[in-house]
Amino acid sequence: MTINKIPIAEYKERIEKIQNILKQRSIDILVVFGTDSEPHNLIYLSNYWPQFETSSVVIPSDGSPVLVIGPESKTFAKDFSLIKKIFQVIEHRESSEPNYPDQKLDTYGEIFNFVLNGSKIKRIGISGISIIALPVYEAIVNSSKSAEIIRADDILINLRMKKSKNEVELMKQSSKITLKAFEAGLSNIKPGMEEVEVSGFIVGEMFKNKAENFAYSPYVLSGQRTNQAISRASHKVILKNEPIQFSFGCRYGNYASSIGRPLCVGKMPKKYRELTSIGIEAQELVISTLKPHIQAKEVFKKYWNFLNSKSYSNYFLYGPCHGTGVMECEHPFLESDSNYLLEEGMAFQIDIFLGNDEFGLRFEDGVFITSNGIEVFNNKYREVIEL
Amino acid sequence: MTINKIPIAEYKERIEKIQNILKQRSIDILVVFGTDSEPHNLIYLSNYWPQFETSSVVIPSDGSPVLVIGPESKTFAKDFSLIKKIFQVIEHRESSEPNYPDQKLDTYGEIFNFVLNGSKIKRIGISGISIIALPVYEAIVNSSKSAEIIRADDILINLRMKKSKNEVELMKQSSKITLKAFEAGLSNIKPGMEEVEVSGFIVGEMFKNKAENFAYSPYVLSGQRTNQAISRASHKVILKNEPIQFSFGCRYGNYASSIGRPLCVGKMPKKYRELTSIGIEAQELVISTLKPHIQAKEVFKKYWNFLNSKSYSNYFLYGPCHGTGVMECEHPFLESDSNYLLEEGMAFQIDIFLGNDEFGLRFEDGVFITSNGIEVFNNKYREVIEL
Repeated sequence: MTINKIPIAEYKERIEKIQNILKQRSIDILVVFGTDSEPHNLIYLSNYWPQFETSSVVIPSDGSPVLVIGPESKTFAKDFSLIKKIFQVIEHRESSEPNYPDQKLDTYGEIFNFVLNGSKIKRIGISGISIIALPVYEAIVNSSKSAEIIRADDILINLRMKKSKNEVELMKQSSKITLKAFEAGLSNIKPGMEEVEVSGFIVGEMFKNKAENFAYSPYVLSGQRTNQAISRASHKVILKNEPIQFSFGCRYGNYASSIGRPLCVGKMPKKYRELTSIGIEAQELVISTLKPHIQAKEVFKKYWNFLNSKSYSNYFLYGPCHGTGVMECEHPFLESDSNYLLEEGMAFQIDIFLGNDEFGLRFEDGVFITSNGIEVFNNKYREVIEL
Repeated sequence: MTINKIPIAEYKERIEKIQNILKQRSIDILVVFGTDSEPHNLIYLSNYWPQFETSSVVIPSDGSPVLVIGPESKTFAKDFSLIKKIFQVIEHRESSEPNYPDQKLDTYGEIFNFVLNGSKIKRIGISGISIIALPVYEAIVNSSKSAEIIRADDILINLRMKKSKNEVELMKQSSKITLKAFEAGLSNIKPGMEEVEVSGFIVGEMFKNKAENFAYSPYVLSGQRTNQAISRASHKVILKNEPIQFSFGCRYGNYASSIGRPLCVGKMPKKYRELTSIGIEAQELVISTLKPHIQAKEVFKKYWNFLNSKSYSNYFLYGPCHGTGVMECEHPFLESDSNYLLEEGMAFQIDIFLGNDEFGLRFEDGVFITSNGIEVFNNKYREVIEL
């Protein structure tokens, strides 16, 4: 029996785990902030993914969490959120800052008072410091001027790092949909099309297979544009015999997936074919190296030594893996200074990006660390693709 | 001859207009912040739309603007941005906050020094205060502790409010693509499909017609979910004879469009059909009222009086129009307190949302104020739609 969402009981466990840490650290309240493009912690805790407005989950060290939204999202949030007590504050409104003269709204002071039953706040933890919007931060600070504000991003980062069986199940299904979208891209790409047109076949296929969205705006990149590690599809027209980079993924049951492959309509230029062979060998090396209980940086070292031995280290941009889950790219990262052990339950994107001024490529597939090895979510198309 | 982007000369004019205002206000530097989900001012000034990382445009009152990005977006930004001088700072990195131990990065202090040729900063304006991420704000403040920081959102808001011929041209093309996507939705929706599956036909059609993205995550809402003014398509299965709300739009040449319609696969329930008739009449009333030189709130008043006369004012959520452009929903808003005159060059979405606990609908189409009237971007499907 497959699932298409995380069971409610698992959301409750997540909140309980956080509350245990809050008690240990004497944090009275944790405020978890998120936006439309950075919704990951909100989704992880409440299943609510805001649009236009921002949102936060407020978790007291004891008692029930509440969801905080802007003035316009009440019916939306009531439908999606598993946290049923909802407050509305002006600071979470749309960025164009409409006024809501006739609407009775709440304040963070009232919300903190509610979740703590009126007892005094000494410490407020904030998760999402790197993205929190200034007015929301100020509203929190001003709500309780005597409270100490502390950065508490690590709580959610650590919690999200090890995946449950349900999470892995959703990531696998998400990967399957992404593979179908990849094949739709291969079947429909033609020279003369703009990159954005090709991405139409890809994203259409994702949603038709019940993905809730893409994991990030898809990259269909051609020619020199293949050397962009982060990008977007553009109006560039695809030519015969030029390098192409496909990098995209979807979200299913809120879990992200991603695939990256170089390809060519026609015959791959010789140097790009050589780089493709290096990419394949590098990805296979990483797959054969990953396992539980080894130092993460050992994997990096093998990858780096391989590139060096082949004289391709000048194509290097970043380490060969990054964590993945509700967010396509999340902790842990796998770099030269990664001093942690790989553990059962960690999920990574093996993300081999190699590029220079002329072109670039990405071989990317999801993988999950098991008790005694790994499971790769997709092994197809690890080859030279000429259409 | 149609265009698919704003000419470079027009970007230069935008910067010059801003610099004139900066001089008038004795603002030495304007910092314009944006994110993946709130990129509008960045796109408007540079054509760059970040992904994963955030960005800002720094405009001195004299001289050339620069683009500020995070550590990973160099090739991406170089390709898209029309502002060619680019700096990279750590505070614009991904929200998961990777370290970049081996990368030489810039600071806001160095950037300000560069754009002002070392002269002292007295006043820094910030645009995007409602969304600016705390670390970026702090980096700006700390770069120049003696400078006064002032809120300057109104500069871009006012500039963007009146559209050029090129902007209107792109909005019209964007609307045409959205109409095709709407028709793809009508042709393919079947009872038994999940809402997200239907959105696959819609978004696929957008990109296949060269849209760069959707304007917002599409709403295909069914049953009671139609009462959500902001929402997302879900895994809910669409039934025969139940209310459905289509609300979506695309971006073309960076300009947003949107369409909203109620419909039904089968026979529309009587009360929903009645509400649909009210929606049509309301939208037609607004279309016939909009023209240059009248008070915006007069349009609101007519709309409100109409709803009252039909005993539908309890279905009201917000005023009948909002501005539109690079952002699907932007200034000016059209509410009971809108004390401004409608002017040639303003573009609106006529956005009639009516709902109660049971169901809701939206009639939405773009419109442009001309010298002596209006031009509606789409007049099709303003009718009871039963498939």
